[in-house]
Amino acid sequence: MDEFKIRKIVTQAIEEDIGTGDITTESVVEDEERSSGKIKFKENGVLAGLPVAELVFKEIDDGVNFQALKKEGQTIRPGEVVAEVSGRSASILKGERLALNFLQRLSGIATKTRRYVKEVEDYDVKVVDTRKTTPNLRILEKYAVKIGGGYNHRMGLYDAVLIKDNHIRSAGGIEEAVARVGHEHTLKIEVEVESVEDVKKAIRVDVDIVMLDNMSMDEMKEAVRIIGDEAVVEASGGIDIHNIKEVAATGVDVISIGALTHQISSLDISLDLF
Amino acid sequence: MDEFKIRKIVTQAIEEDIGTGDITTESVVEDEERSSGKIKFKENGVLAGLPVAELVFKEIDDGVNFQALKKEGQTIRPGEVVAEVSGRSASILKGERLALNFLQRLSGIATKTRRYVKEVEDYDVKVVDTRKTTPNLRILEKYAVKIGGGYNHRMGLYDAVLIKDNHIRSAGGIEEAVARVGHEHTLKIEVEVESVEDVKKAIRVDVDIVMLDNMSMDEMKEAVRIIGDEAVVEASGGIDIHNIKEVAATGVDVISIGALTHQISSLDISLDLF
Amino acid sequence: MDEFKIRKIVTQAIEEDIGTGDITTESVVEDEERSSGKIKFKENGVLAGLPVAELVFKEIDDGVNFQALKKEGQTIRPGEVVAEVSGRSASILKGERLALNFLQRLSGIATKTRRYVKEVEDYDVKVVDTRKTTPNLRILEKYAVKIGGGYNHRMGLYDAVLIKDNHIRSAGGIEEAVARVGHEHTLKIEVEVESVEDVKKAIRVDVDIVMLDNMSMDEMKEAVRIIGDEAVVEASGGIDIHNIKEVAATGVDVISIGALTHQISSLDISLDLF
Amino acid sequence: MDEFKIRKIVTQAIEEDIGTGDITTESVVEDEERSSGKIKFKENGVLAGLPVAELVFKEIDDGVNFQALKKEGQTIRPGEVVAEVSGRSASILKGERLALNFLQRLSGIATKTRRYVKEVEDYDVKVVDTRKTTPNLRILEKYAVKIGGGYNHRMGLYDAVLIKDNHIRSAGGIEEAVARVGHEHTLKIEVEVESVEDVKKAIRVDVDIVMLDNMSMDEMKEAVRIIGDEAVVEASGGIDIHNIKEVAATGVDVISIGALTHQISSLDISLDLF
Amino acid sequence: MDEFKIRKIVTQAIEEDIGTGDITTESVVEDEERSSGKIKFKENGVLAGLPVAELVFKEIDDGVNFQALKKEGQTIRPGEVVAEVSGRSASILKGERLALNFLQRLSGIATKTRRYVKEVEDYDVKVVDTRKTTPNLRILEKYAVKIGGGYNHRMGLYDAVLIKDNHIRSAGGIEEAVARVGHEHTLKIEVEVESVEDVKKAIRVDVDIVMLDNMSMDEMKEAVRIIGDEAVVEASGGIDIHNIKEVAATGVDVISIGALTHQISSLDISLDLF
Amino acid sequence: MDEFKIRKIVTQAIEEDIGTGDITTESVVEDEERSSGKIKFKENGVLAGLPVAELVFKEIDDGVNFQALKKEGQTIRPGEVVAEVSGRSASILKGERLALNFLQRLSGIATKTRRYVKEVEDYDVKVVDTRKTTPNLRILEKYAVKIGGGYNHRMGLYDAVLIKDNHIRSAGGIEEAVARVGHEHTLKIEVEVESVEDVKKAIRVDVDIVMLDNMSMDEMKEAVRIIGDEAVVEASGGIDIHNIKEVAATGVDVISIGALTHQISSLDISLDLF
Repeated sequence: MDEFKIRKIVTQAIEEDIGTGDITTESVVEDEERSSGKIKFKENGVLAGLPVAELVFKEIDDGVNFQALKKEGQTIRPGEVVAEVSGRSASILKGERLALNFLQRLSGIATKTRRYVKEVEDYDVKVVDTRKTTPNLRILEKYAVKIGGGYNHRMGLYDAVLIKDNHIRSAGGIEEAVARVGHEHTLKIEVEVESVEDVKKAIRVDVDIVMLDNMSMDEMKEAVRIIGDEAVVEASGGIDIHNIKEVAATGVDVISIGALTHQISSLDISLDLF
Repeated sequence: MDEFKIRKIVTQAIEEDIGTGDITTESVVEDEERSSGKIKFKENGVLAGLPVAELVFKEIDDGVNFQALKKEGQTIRPGEVVAEVSGRSASILKGERLALNFLQRLSGIATKTRRYVKEVEDYDVKVVDTRKTTPNLRILEKYAVKIGGGYNHRMGLYDAVLIKDNHIRSAGGIEEAVARVGHEHTLKIEVEVESVEDVKKAIRVDVDIVMLDNMSMDEMKEAVRIIGDEAVVEASGGIDIHNIKEVAATGVDVISIGALTHQISSLDISLDLF
Repeated sequence: MDEFKIRKIVTQAIEEDIGTGDITTESVVEDEERSSGKIKFKENGVLAGLPVAELVFKEIDDGVNFQALKKEGQTIRPGEVVAEVSGRSASILKGERLALNFLQRLSGIATKTRRYVKEVEDYDVKVVDTRKTTPNLRILEKYAVKIGGGYNHRMGLYDAVLIKDNHIRSAGGIEEAVARVGHEHTLKIEVEVESVEDVKKAIRVDVDIVMLDNMSMDEMKEAVRIIGDEAVVEASGGIDIHNIKEVAATGVDVISIGALTHQISSLDISLDLF
Repeated sequence: MDEFKIRKIVTQAIEEDIGTGDITTESVVEDEERSSGKIKFKENGVLAGLPVAELVFKEIDDGVNFQALKKEGQTIRPGEVVAEVSGRSASILKGERLALNFLQRLSGIATKTRRYVKEVEDYDVKVVDTRKTTPNLRILEKYAVKIGGGYNHRMGLYDAVLIKDNHIRSAGGIEEAVARVGHEHTLKIEVEVESVEDVKKAIRVDVDIVMLDNMSMDEMKEAVRIIGDEAVVEASGGIDIHNIKEVAATGVDVISIGALTHQISSLDISLDLF
Repeated sequence: MDEFKIRKIVTQAIEEDIGTGDITTESVVEDEERSSGKIKFKENGVLAGLPVAELVFKEIDDGVNFQALKKEGQTIRPGEVVAEVSGRSASILKGERLALNFLQRLSGIATKTRRYVKEVEDYDVKVVDTRKTTPNLRILEKYAVKIGGGYNHRMGLYDAVLIKDNHIRSAGGIEEAVARVGHEHTLKIEVEVESVEDVKKAIRVDVDIVMLDNMSMDEMKEAVRIIGDEAVVEASGGIDIHNIKEVAATGVDVISIGALTHQISSLDISLDLF
Repeated sequence: MDEFKIRKIVTQAIEEDIGTGDITTESVVEDEERSSGKIKFKENGVLAGLPVAELVFKEIDDGVNFQALKKEGQTIRPGEVVAEVSGRSASILKGERLALNFLQRLSGIATKTRRYVKEVEDYDVKVVDTRKTTPNLRILEKYAVKIGGGYNHRMGLYDAVLIKDNHIRSAGGIEEAVARVGHEHTLKIEVEVESVEDVKKAIRVDVDIVMLDNMSMDEMKEAVRIIGDEAVVEASGGIDIHNIKEVAATGVDVISIGALTHQISSLDISLDLF
């Protein structure tokens, strides 16, 4: 995760939290006092976000030393220390909560993603995210999905064509919608379909990806059969940890899960100073 | 929610999602086409975030008309429409996902808060949030907590003194830490304590708020008894929907719940065009 | 061209030009004076950039009225008026040069693109741009290419995979490079090849686009034959208005031309006040 | 060229190109791989922009080492290396295109300027640029003009008074327009004139610079004679490489050439990694 | 004062004051309540800054109506109302202090400037400001100086050459320093001199403005005599309301007064709601 | 004063002053020339702002060495050197004026504050500032007040509730206004009162701070007597260096003085190069 891509997010978040000053630390802790801290997992999970946590401290005080002890994507057990931070006590205290806020959310996303990925590990299928991310944190949340073993769906409205029901209605049909697309040669075209009939239309106009939206297991199997090698098949809608295996078994290539980033369970992680 | 306070968040989020362009909508939907949409709850919940959703559409295209049909804080049942939006189809499609991302998260927070507040409605106690918010969205998430019937803890490190264990250790004791505080007369001083012994020290140096950190029910009752009217008593740490009532029964004034914003369950809300 | 996508470019450019004030106009022209102006082509060309020119005036003074008389992409003859602007004289004078700077560059790009497109109109081939655009104006310059009848190559390093010689060397071969790619299902993979041998390797690993870099006409024909329907074929490097027809005749699908945006001939356009 | 003056331009341009990530390099090139590259001219020209190219790499990764081998303003022959860059391969690849985009444009401007300057080297005349620069790159383009041996006209509307035809019409005459000027004692006043009659009026009201707009050679000679030492004489409009010598021979002090920055021919420069 | 030039200053200042919210007004004042207010001078002074005050209210709530009753630069007596504002009470209360902060400072500067200007009204001399302005408010403070009847010295380091003692020492003498100057034809050259000897050197190298730095009255008279019409003569350093008349009597053309913006006496102005 | 809190203020101020370039220094002073300078007080005063001055130079050129010789808050006599700066001459000259502008203003505020504080040193009373600060410099000006020995009133509208006359009128009385307040438990509530009658009402509803607005000495004494230990008593309005002692003698706890930041007397400080 290149620093220049996340510097703005991190500095804005520092401004948000510290604002005109950490009035407690600035008056209680002496400037020259130094200390060290351990960032410790308090529950099982997949580590994600250490470079972001590090940048929080560096932007507050580039004299802070941050030592990663684990790698992004490693599975961590309760009690394990993932990084050590040392430097001016005041700087560590100012950054503590924010660094944890990033780390807990991102590790939470990576951990959840890993669970979905494991569930379908016997199938040749990718678990991917959606655009249902937290506003202004998409780049980080999608990074956490990859750390967890998932893949990314498009980053935004700009890097792949995805023709959804409203586009189809507006154009007057799948064929018409696809015909209108700009056809830049570097961009893939995906179409959302809701019936087997639509699948056939999509294949006829040669789209790259067919998204099966909220289909039954039987419909999905039929769609997979029809599509064959003609396009990538993506299952979407109403899929959770309970039925993802069944969906994978239909033979789809990709399963997109909004909940990866839409339901965020921050992991329990602490920074213990000493 | 004044527009000027959230305009930056909203415009950045639009840039994040649309970037160099919504390549699907721009090629498939005709510029002059107009349509209307209904924002509909698909599960029970408390409405929060309509002004943010409205601003998303307005910033994309100020010709979009946004009509709120429900008020912030109202309880909504599945199927109820909370707002109608009409205007250029392309503009509505461009803003749809982002408007929902805001609305679903904020309503999710308000709904969860309402549940905690209801649970303790028989007690004279406030449910408050923490600084465990999503980086760069704190103003919105704390707003949602209030909409849900909760109260806000400090907005950041700058608007109240909160002396925690590390500050106390650094200063060499509760009394020393409080003595070092700047004592701006407009700011309250809160101290985090971990034992009944500490409670007594805090009272002796006349703090405004005593935060009982991870105490047992018995300790909390004892603390409440000792503190009396001398300070506001806040319970914190390890409190969830299962034990909040028991905590309230100890007689504390305030209960702070990190999970209000730390575990985010976006509500299921859709925008149906027609 | 949505306003919110170009507002930052336009306001920064206004700051650049007007800075602390248009010291001439502010002292010489009376505040209440009003006038009108005609934006007129002084040479043949394709119109591109009117919405940008309009935004320049609107950001300076939203009381300025801007009336487009021609459509983006129309061919304009010398002497033809493409838009009329009216309002406070001072506001028109402040925006004049900047509005023209945008309009002249973008129309210049559209005009040049149209020339390339015309040259190969008898072939089923797309003329596309490159990343050799003016820093910070890419969104506008690529827009002008489309207005001129061309297509866009990827917008940046983020929306398509393009494996170039240095990537191949780093990975140790075309196959190895492709194997390392993240394989997000929404992104296309393009590989740059320099020999017919490489073409075969690329096809073997199933890339979406093969870029023939600086190949001879004969090599290109051979490549087209080998690739068949297996991938999109893009010709690149050393192609100009003199040899583009010959390149098109080789049967490639796409021809990318750096000069579309790399050599900028601003069109002669004036704003005449009256 | 101070870094703090161009940092915003450079970082915005990095965001524009890399956006959410260089998806090719990030997956294909290993993090620890290092390499070196030579920036090489492929045609004759004047070097301009090395500090900008250097900043591109530094902002992406401050571990990149950039060694200038030639000085700004030197004439470079095809095949000559102007700088060497070494460091993480991924960082070099990410910055390559953008660094070259800056360098090629600025060297192109310096080269063209040098050609104009050489053409009139036997005359005591300055070749200057105009405000016809690329929006948001003016500071760089005017820098390149100076590197090429030219001089800068005003930077924007704020640092010199330039009374043009519309101002004159608005004020009701040259004398009236000059009379209205704020007369800050640190600012020069220039007036654009279109006839010998106007030249006399301008001299009468004691302007600092007289701009002869689109005059014939004979008119210019007459104007030069009339003005004598009373003001600086600037020739402007319709001057190109073919007639600049003739214009210089009229005795004017300054010749302004819009084409220096209005018609941009990027120089052919490459970055070869090894 | 064009809005686009001061919008950033105003919006930043609103963020500074309101931050996460006007917690008093938002809870105490009802949303729909409306009121009106009069902006009233409580001491004698020159009005400056009404457009800035207006923009404060408009940026907070564009439904606020702001009616200027006096013109910028008018002399106002105690008790006189200069503007009326009406709209949502909450919006007026949120903007009140900030609008006054701008208005009081700017009117204070205009008033002080007027006093200096009056003092020398019998002489043909300009009173000008310096670069000793409040960081980030220069454009407003220099505007207030003009409103008060003064003139502006250069806006910054970029719009006029001013060779000071350190430059002279660095170059090795006045002549050498002037010789090194870029000589862009649109920029004036000013030299700071400290002795009559230096005055002669400056004249010899043909500078546009000679700044007499901290000279005695006799030296200034001698300098004026020597310079004649060869350059503008500016007196600077140690000049205040007590000796400015005497300085003016020496015959200098311009007197620069740092105290105009360096010592700020905000005028007493109130906003009375009813 | 953490750098990250003031970096934006400082970099904006550098842009304001240097803009497109320090055209004098860039042409007159050679790049490699180095020099040293002493920052010297020319009148008695309290030092405040050295870290800001240092950051000015560092942001211009991080090779500049800045050595503080005195500590913030020290009383400095005329002629004493408070810091030394050394490095590239050009960099020092570019930052000189701006560094001094910050230092002179902030030291001026600290000096004035110290005078007020000294005046009441025999009383147990705090001298505090107000929101009458320079727009966009509040964080620095309030810092200078603390350096001078004063205390800060609220930082903005967001960090304490202050119910003023207009709020009271809007709510229909002091009691009603207080009742409407959000009652976040971390925020204090202050009420502005204008009569002894109001004091009683405020006490009855249990506010934290009572602000006595423009009361006579007798009223203040009476208010102090009534309030006792029930609230902090703040005197405000019409208090200056002449009557502050008398006000302190009434027994109030806090005296707020708008003039600390509303009337700015920049201290005379110079940077002498050698």
